[in-house]
Amino acid sequence: MSAYETLEQRFRRLNALREAAGILHWDMSAMMPRGGAEARSEQLTALDLTCHELMNDPALTDLFAEAEQGAGRLDPWRRANLREMRRGWRHETALDARLVEALTKTQHRCEMTWREARPANDFAAVLPCFAELLTLVRESADTKAAALGRTPYDALLDQFEPGGASARIDAIFDDLAAFLPEFLGRVIERQAASPAPMTPPGPFPIAKQEALARKLMQGVGFDFDHGRLDTSLHPFCGGVPDDVRITTRYDEADFTSALMGVLHETGHAMYERGLPVDWRFQPVGAAAGMAAHESQSLLVEMQACRGREFVGYMAPLARAAFGGTGPAWEADNLHRLANKVAPDFVRVDADEVTYPAHIILRYRLEKAMIAGDLDPKDLPGAWNEGMESLLGIRPPDDRLGCLQDIHWYDGAWGYFPTYTLGAMAAAQFFAAAKAAVPDIPEAIGRGDFAPLMAWLRENVHAQGSLHTTDDLLKQATGKPLDPEVFKAHLTARYLA
Amino acid sequence: MSAYETLEQRFRRLNALREAAGILHWDMSAMMPRGGAEARSEQLTALDLTCHELMNDPALTDLFAEAEQGAGRLDPWRRANLREMRRGWRHETALDARLVEALTKTQHRCEMTWREARPANDFAAVLPCFAELLTLVRESADTKAAALGRTPYDALLDQFEPGGASARIDAIFDDLAAFLPEFLGRVIERQAASPAPMTPPGPFPIAKQEALARKLMQGVGFDFDHGRLDTSLHPFCGGVPDDVRITTRYDEADFTSALMGVLHETGHAMYERGLPVDWRFQPVGAAAGMAAHESQSLLVEMQACRGREFVGYMAPLARAAFGGTGPAWEADNLHRLANKVAPDFVRVDADEVTYPAHIILRYRLEKAMIAGDLDPKDLPGAWNEGMESLLGIRPPDDRLGCLQDIHWYDGAWGYFPTYTLGAMAAAQFFAAAKAAVPDIPEAIGRGDFAPLMAWLRENVHAQGSLHTTDDLLKQATGKPLDPEVFKAHLTARYLA
Repeated sequence: MSAYETLEQRFRRLNALREAAGILHWDMSAMMPRGGAEARSEQLTALDLTCHELMNDPALTDLFAEAEQGAGRLDPWRRANLREMRRGWRHETALDARLVEALTKTQHRCEMTWREARPANDFAAVLPCFAELLTLVRESADTKAAALGRTPYDALLDQFEPGGASARIDAIFDDLAAFLPEFLGRVIERQAASPAPMTPPGPFPIAKQEALARKLMQGVGFDFDHGRLDTSLHPFCGGVPDDVRITTRYDEADFTSALMGVLHETGHAMYERGLPVDWRFQPVGAAAGMAAHESQSLLVEMQACRGREFVGYMAPLARAAFGGTGPAWEADNLHRLANKVAPDFVRVDADEVTYPAHIILRYRLEKAMIAGDLDPKDLPGAWNEGMESLLGIRPPDDRLGCLQDIHWYDGAWGYFPTYTLGAMAAAQFFAAAKAAVPDIPEAIGRGDFAPLMAWLRENVHAQGSLHTTDDLLKQATGKPLDPEVFKAHLTARYLA
Repeated sequence: MSAYETLEQRFRRLNALREAAGILHWDMSAMMPRGGAEARSEQLTALDLTCHELMNDPALTDLFAEAEQGAGRLDPWRRANLREMRRGWRHETALDARLVEALTKTQHRCEMTWREARPANDFAAVLPCFAELLTLVRESADTKAAALGRTPYDALLDQFEPGGASARIDAIFDDLAAFLPEFLGRVIERQAASPAPMTPPGPFPIAKQEALARKLMQGVGFDFDHGRLDTSLHPFCGGVPDDVRITTRYDEADFTSALMGVLHETGHAMYERGLPVDWRFQPVGAAAGMAAHESQSLLVEMQACRGREFVGYMAPLARAAFGGTGPAWEADNLHRLANKVAPDFVRVDADEVTYPAHIILRYRLEKAMIAGDLDPKDLPGAWNEGMESLLGIRPPDDRLGCLQDIHWYDGAWGYFPTYTLGAMAAAQFFAAAKAAVPDIPEAIGRGDFAPLMAWLRENVHAQGSLHTTDDLLKQATGKPLDPEVFKAHLTARYLA
C-alpha cells in the first residue's frame, strides 16, 4: 500500500470515529435523558482521546513526507485529500497534550460558568475563567500560527474556514460597515412608509407546525430515508451525510421561527447529503468550510424562502395548516413580516440587514482580544460602544450584550466571520444559479426546489473540499467572494 | 501507577467505547432512517477494531502478570475486577485476526441469508453458509477452550455465563425434561376444566398502550431521567446503566404483548440501573451474566407481573385506559389469559411452562453440533424429533422449526441455556425476596415495586460481577441454583 493509501485508511478510521461522536452529540441534544450526561461525557472523551492518538501517531510524519513526494502523480481529488489530511493533522498535532487538556477543561468550566452568568447578567462571574481561557486560546493560536505559517488569528480561522485570511475579511467587513448604516436608515424609512406587518394570531399546535415543516422540507429535497427532524433546545444540523439529523424548537405563539429555522437547517442538510459519495469518510469529502456551509443554509432560508415566490407558495399552506383567516395570512403580509428590518441587541434574532453588524462587531473584538489589544475586563464596554457605532443602539445590560453568545465561552474563536461570509456567498451562489437556470424562482413559487438543488448539487455540494471556498465560488459563479452581489441583493430586496 | 491501576484505566477506555457502540446500536434499531445503515456499519466497525486493538496491545500480557502477582493485596472488588478483566481479555485475544475476520464476515453473510430463508421456509438456502459458520464457530470454540482451560462448548458458554458448566446444565435440564411432560399434561387438563380465557376486544390505540406502559414502568421503578422507552421491530434493553433505553413494539389488536414486553425489558433496565455506581466502566461493574440478566426481566414479567396481585392492580387501569367493558376485563379473566399454557412451535411466544422445553431442545442440538455429533444438514430432522419428544408436537415446516431464531445464524452459540437458567434463578430470587420481605406481594398488588426492588438492588443489582451467578444466588438465597424452587413455583401457580 502506498503512503497515500495508508493515510486514506487512517483517516477513514478517524472519520468513522468522529461520525460516531457526531451521532452521540445529536443524541445528547435530541434524545438523551438528563441523567445520561456523565456517562455520555465519558464516552465522548474516550472517542476524542482515541482520535487524538490516531493523529499523533509518530508514523504519520513519515507517511505525509512520503505521500507528498508522490503527490504529483495523484489526481486532483487525491491531491486535495492529501492537502486536507495534512491541514487537519497539523491542527491536531500543533498543540501538546498539556495544552489540549488545559483547553478542554477550561472551555468546559467556562461554558458551565457562562450558563449561569448569562441569565444572571453577571459578566464579573465569568470574567476570571474567561480571561484564563483567552490566555490558553492565545497560546494555542501562537502555536498553531507557527505550525501553519499563518498569523495567530488566521490560524484559528483556518479551523473553520480553510485558507481564510483576516486581511481580506478586514477589507470586506470595513466596506460593509461603511455601507450598512446609511442603507439601514433608508430601509427603515421605507418600511415605515408601508403598512406595518401583522402577526397571525396563534396558538399554533406543535404537531401542526411539525407537519407543515416536514412538507416544506420535502419540497426543498430533504430525504427522510436519509435523515430525521427532531426537537432540541438549540436548533442544529448534525448526524452524517447519509443520515442527517436536523432539529428545531417550537413556539406555540409563533410558527414562523420554527419554520424558518427548519428551512435553514434543511439548507445545511442538503449540503451534507450532496457531498461527494465517492469520498465519504475522507477529509476531501467534507464541506469546504463553515462559510460554505452557512451559505447553503442561508441560501435556502434567506435567499429562497424569504423571497416573494416562496412566501406566495407557503402562505396558503400555512393558513390551511392552522385554520387561519383574515389579512394577516395574506402572502403580502407574511412577506413583509419575513423581511422586517429593525436593529436589535440579539444576533440570533437579527434580520438579514442588521445581522452583518453583529458579526463585524464580534470579529473585530475577537481579533483585538487574540492580538492582546483588548483586555477581557474591558469587553462589555467595547461591546456596547461597538453596537452604538454599528447599529446605533446600546445594550441595556451584558445579557443582551457580550454574554449573549456561547462561542467565546466555549472556545470557538475565529468562527464568527463565517456567518457573514456565508451570507455573502449565499447571495452570490443564488444569483449565479438563477442566471444559469432562469426558471428557478418560478419553480420555488410552486414549492419545487429541484432545479435549484440540481445546480447546487453539481456546483457546490458534490465538490466537497476539492476547492477552497473562494475557488469554489470562482468555479461556480465566475468570481471569488464579491460583497457587491450581497449588497445588490439587499438593495433589490429592501429598496426596490 | 500500579499494573492493576493501569489495567483499570485501559478497561475504562475500552468500556466507554463499548458504551458508545451500545448507544449507536440502540439508535440503529430505534431511530436511524434506513439510509443510514452503511455509514453506521462503518462507525461500528471502527469502534470494534479500536476495542480489539486496545485488547491486543502486547503490553497487557505483562500488566496482567504483574497485577496478578499483587492480587493478594487487592480488596474483593478489585480482585473480582481483575478476574473479569482477564476473562474478557482471554476471550478477545484467543482468536487471531484471520479467524475474527472470517467469523465476522460469515456471521454477517449467514444472518443476511437467514433473513430471506426464514420467510421463504428454505433451510437449504442457508445451509451452505450455516455449515461454514459452524466450522468457524467450532474452530473458535477449540481455540478458546485451549486458552481458557474449558471444554469447547463451555468456552462458548463462558462468553455469556461466566464460569457456566455444561455438565451442571445437563443435569438440570435432564431433570427438567423428565419433569415437564407429565406436569404439562396436568396443567393442560386443569386449564381445560376452567372457563377459557376471553381476549378483550381491541383495537387498542398505540398512544394509550404507551401511556399505560409508562405508568406501569414507573411503578416498577423505572426512572425516566435515566432512560427512555421507544419503539423498535425487536424489543430489547439497550443503552448504558445511567441511560437505559428500552424498546417495544405495539400491536393494536392485543395490548398485552407490548405491555408484558415492556415489563420484561423494565426488569432488565432495573438491573442495569442498579449496578454498582462505584464500578461504572469496569468489568466488575457489569451484570453477572446473561442468566442473571434474564432472571431480572423474568422476575418482573413472569414472577411478579403475571401473578394474581399485579394483574389485580393492572386490570382496572387497563380497562380505564382503553374504555373497556364486560367480563373480559375482569382481573380473574386477565389472570387466566396471562397464564394460559399451550404447547406451540415458536419460542418467543411460548408460555412459562413450555418455554424450558424450547430451550432444552436448542441446548442439546447446539452442544451436539459443536461436538461434531450432529451434521448441520440433519438439523431440521433432529429439531422436529426433539419437539415431538419434548412437547408432543411436530413443526409443519422449518419456518416454525429450526429457522425461527436468529441466534445460531448470527453466531450466538452457547447463549440459549441462559434463558432457562434465568427463569429458574428468577423463581429463586423472588421466593427469597418474599421470605425476607413478606409484604412484597401486597405492595405489588398496589403497583408498588419499591420493597421488591430494594431487596433486588441490595442482593443482586449492586453486586455487579463481584460473584458468579451461583455465588450470587448463594449469598442472596442461601443456596446455588436450585431447580426445585422453579418447579415449586410452576406447581403453585398452575396446579394450586
